[in-house]
Amino acid sequence: MTTVVPAATNAQAVAWHHRHLIDVDVVTCPEIALIMRTTDVMRGILARPIRKVPALNGRRVTTLFYEASTRTRVSFETAARNLSADVVSVSTATSSVTKGESLVDTVRTLEALGAEILVMRHAVSGAPYLAAEVFGGHVLNGGDGWHAHPTQALLDLYTMRENLPGGDLRGRKVAIVGDILHSRVARSNIWTLTAAGADLWLCGPATLLRGMDRWAAAWAGGAIPGHGRFNVTSDIAAALRDADVVMGLRIQRERMQGGLLPSLREYAARFQLNAERVSLAKPDAIVMHPGPMNEGVEIAPDVAISGRSVITDQVANGVAVRMALLYLLAGAHEAARVPAHEAARGGPRAR
Amino acid sequence: MTTVVPAATNAQAVAWHHRHLIDVDVVTCPEIALIMRTTDVMRGILARPIRKVPALNGRRVTTLFYEASTRTRVSFETAARNLSADVVSVSTATSSVTKGESLVDTVRTLEALGAEILVMRHAVSGAPYLAAEVFGGHVLNGGDGWHAHPTQALLDLYTMRENLPGGDLRGRKVAIVGDILHSRVARSNIWTLTAAGADLWLCGPATLLRGMDRWAAAWAGGAIPGHGRFNVTSDIAAALRDADVVMGLRIQRERMQGGLLPSLREYAARFQLNAERVSLAKPDAIVMHPGPMNEGVEIAPDVAISGRSVITDQVANGVAVRMALLYLLAGAHEAARVPAHEAARGGPRAR
Amino acid sequence: MTTVVPAATNAQAVAWHHRHLIDVDVVTCPEIALIMRTTDVMRGILARPIRKVPALNGRRVTTLFYEASTRTRVSFETAARNLSADVVSVSTATSSVTKGESLVDTVRTLEALGAEILVMRHAVSGAPYLAAEVFGGHVLNGGDGWHAHPTQALLDLYTMRENLPGGDLRGRKVAIVGDILHSRVARSNIWTLTAAGADLWLCGPATLLRGMDRWAAAWAGGAIPGHGRFNVTSDIAAALRDADVVMGLRIQRERMQGGLLPSLREYAARFQLNAERVSLAKPDAIVMHPGPMNEGVEIAPDVAISGRSVITDQVANGVAVRMALLYLLAGAHEAARVPAHEAARGGPRAR
Repeated sequence: MTTVVPAATNAQAVAWHHRHLIDVDVVTCPEIALIMRTTDVMRGILARPIRKVPALNGRRVTTLFYEASTRTRVSFETAARNLSADVVSVSTATSSVTKGESLVDTVRTLEALGAEILVMRHAVSGAPYLAAEVFGGHVLNGGDGWHAHPTQALLDLYTMRENLPGGDLRGRKVAIVGDILHSRVARSNIWTLTAAGADLWLCGPATLLRGMDRWAAAWAGGAIPGHGRFNVTSDIAAALRDADVVMGLRIQRERMQGGLLPSLREYAARFQLNAERVSLAKPDAIVMHPGPMNEGVEIAPDVAISGRSVITDQVANGVAVRMALLYLLAGAHEAARVPAHEAARGGPRAR
Repeated sequence: MTTVVPAATNAQAVAWHHRHLIDVDVVTCPEIALIMRTTDVMRGILARPIRKVPALNGRRVTTLFYEASTRTRVSFETAARNLSADVVSVSTATSSVTKGESLVDTVRTLEALGAEILVMRHAVSGAPYLAAEVFGGHVLNGGDGWHAHPTQALLDLYTMRENLPGGDLRGRKVAIVGDILHSRVARSNIWTLTAAGADLWLCGPATLLRGMDRWAAAWAGGAIPGHGRFNVTSDIAAALRDADVVMGLRIQRERMQGGLLPSLREYAARFQLNAERVSLAKPDAIVMHPGPMNEGVEIAPDVAISGRSVITDQVANGVAVRMALLYLLAGAHEAARVPAHEAARGGPRAR
Repeated sequence: MTTVVPAATNAQAVAWHHRHLIDVDVVTCPEIALIMRTTDVMRGILARPIRKVPALNGRRVTTLFYEASTRTRVSFETAARNLSADVVSVSTATSSVTKGESLVDTVRTLEALGAEILVMRHAVSGAPYLAAEVFGGHVLNGGDGWHAHPTQALLDLYTMRENLPGGDLRGRKVAIVGDILHSRVARSNIWTLTAAGADLWLCGPATLLRGMDRWAAAWAGGAIPGHGRFNVTSDIAAALRDADVVMGLRIQRERMQGGLLPSLREYAARFQLNAERVSLAKPDAIVMHPGPMNEGVEIAPDVAISGRSVITDQVANGVAVRMALLYLLAGAHEAARVPAHEAARGGPRAR
């Protein structure tokens, strides 16, 4: 436990100045590069026999999940514990606390109980902004409604860079296929991938692309400086042809209510990422999925475990990315008292 | 982690001899003073950058909650972890285990699994007494039915003393407003506040004060040595006028069943702690609430976050009070076999 | 925390070569003896004031419970923490994840999140075999359907040996009474007790013994080398007469559906382990139960807490047995890459 995060990372950490991370829309390219480099360091830590560093020793991370999510919650908690933070876990399976007032009261209470970094997931888009208004520490968004899932977009980006020559996405074709309309994963990925210069294609049934064409038009018109255009289509062949990256999104059964999907069977027939369709992509294209998968619906089981699949890499990289973000957020918080992290347990610590 | 609880506190700790803490009725004034002083020490620890001391290193604290309660459970668990105890958390959302036999079986099992201090919450008044009969360690009541919530009363007392000149409650007017009948918070507060010499007023609709007048008469008749009289009224103006402390209690929706309350709206109209009513109290009066609040019912949102409100202080003090109680209970337990724990890592430990 | 598991145990650990423990059917007599000796060592650790050793420091134990089970889950987690492992706890109260595909996806995800030892409970018999096929670490079965509950059988064996002169079960009469048909506890106990040479009797209503006679015939015919024969009967007096060990099994209310039991009352009248029936056993016979008990159904309350009862000893021994198994499994895993972990805090560690 005497190992600390290399000093090089600390030097870079001065470039990070966001108090919260609620979406990637406000994160600049140099900041994304900083996150990627910090994630490299965390990957190195995860490769050690004892995957624990004292970077956040004594710091309090509280997870507040208003939606069930084993994998994301475990990923954040593992990341926090790897950094030696104390973790408090609050899950609210019941939706009795969806009113804004209750969220505010809960956040104030958790802060009074000692929370310094609040990782939250909420079914209502924008809920983390409300929490950030009243919380004295840092808010890290673990997914809010259809709005944003910034840590997923960042781990996706990290995984793509890891698998592309030179780690460069410029001009690389990335196809995201599935329920774009309801996907916070897709929305956050649009920001990071257009910033990285990827040739992004969003694909799905027209009912699940609603509104995306107008967003694409704004992007294409140069409304968002620094972000390239992207494509929206229901033509799966056009989306997948010569792609470098193919990403499937989860199709939820409840989407069939309201007439958005006639049936899962029909979705699978037209859009499932199966071996035949994926063969349209480049020979060395990778297949991704944010999980949990409905194997047999949006992705065929053999594709999910094929040599092209980097789906479990995404999960493993998720821990490293979340370690990096917790580390950077805590460091920003500590800007005034930076030397703190240089001294691990076993010697005097300045804080 | 080399910091220990100051020796001064240890000297005082010899005065603590309760094996369990199920209600405050058996706690004497000097013992309350000891709890308050120990809480001061714990507050000092919470003010440090690393809020952790090894006082209960290797000791086992098990929380057994038969009622859902995020804030109280997290408060106890945070307190236990701050003292370096190992924490096991058992929640029984289902009420399938309300029979006495099952409780006894569960308590015996948790002890065999290693539990030394059992923090329990149960919907049935008196359940902790049953647990204490069969449990070899310490039982700390986290709330049982309508009966008692001793840690809440002690954190309330600590918060009042902190906000009153000289920390003295003698002659200070304290008004508790709400559903007194069903409130374990009110019942435990009656014991501590009448012992502290406060001028206590309990206020609410007549249906939610049932039986309180007889209890007040016993107190007034001197039946309880060392405890002063208290007042029971449905006249909210009389209760609040010139009060030093105004405390609201949660009104639960289910109380409207059985005809105890005509509607939440009517309750709010007559008893809500709003700005106008609170202005009847002294200019520097404080506003308290045990949480979780129904803002807009028993308390107006602007009052809850006003400068008078010490509601989040209550939450923060709750961690310190619970640290103090865990520390005192564990110390009493260890009186006979103290040297054992001195063998812990890092040499002899002051306890 | 400087105490390590004595070197003597390490020497023996070389004899352990199972990667997973899914049932006791594949565990040989010398291996059972090794587990018993390792459990002795763990018992010694549990008797210390600080019951924690760094044996699994930095190792990741994940519990994955698809069935609710407070006591077994807490037992495993306590065992893992006693060995300083990091514990991640995943409970899936909802049965939405019972399809094989989902289990495989979940197991792969947990591994990618860092799980090294997976303790799992599942309602479907055989589910751990499926998990073991895709999991890169160790699978430890915490109970699967009617199939197996190996840690329960091993703690039962340990508790019997502890209470029998010389710790020898050869020729000792053991009666297991209750719902044999649906009991994974009974099935795993058949393997360990017939291997230990006990005179085993399985007893219950004929409807709850279905198929057991054929299994007994195979055993009696010598089909299973190294395992002695056992008896199956509905005659409770014959089962209990002169028994050294009497074990009750839980009768579940849902068994009455499908006509297997007319009523709990009738079961209790004919098969309940009450004082009168238990008096048929030897004067110093012990009474066991895997818990949780339905006191008043399969066992009388006075028998459950009588001097003969070793039921809470079973719970306490359960922690020690699970520590032993986690230790042995982790050791087998590490055989190839031992030096890595020697770099841990405090210098080289014996493993």
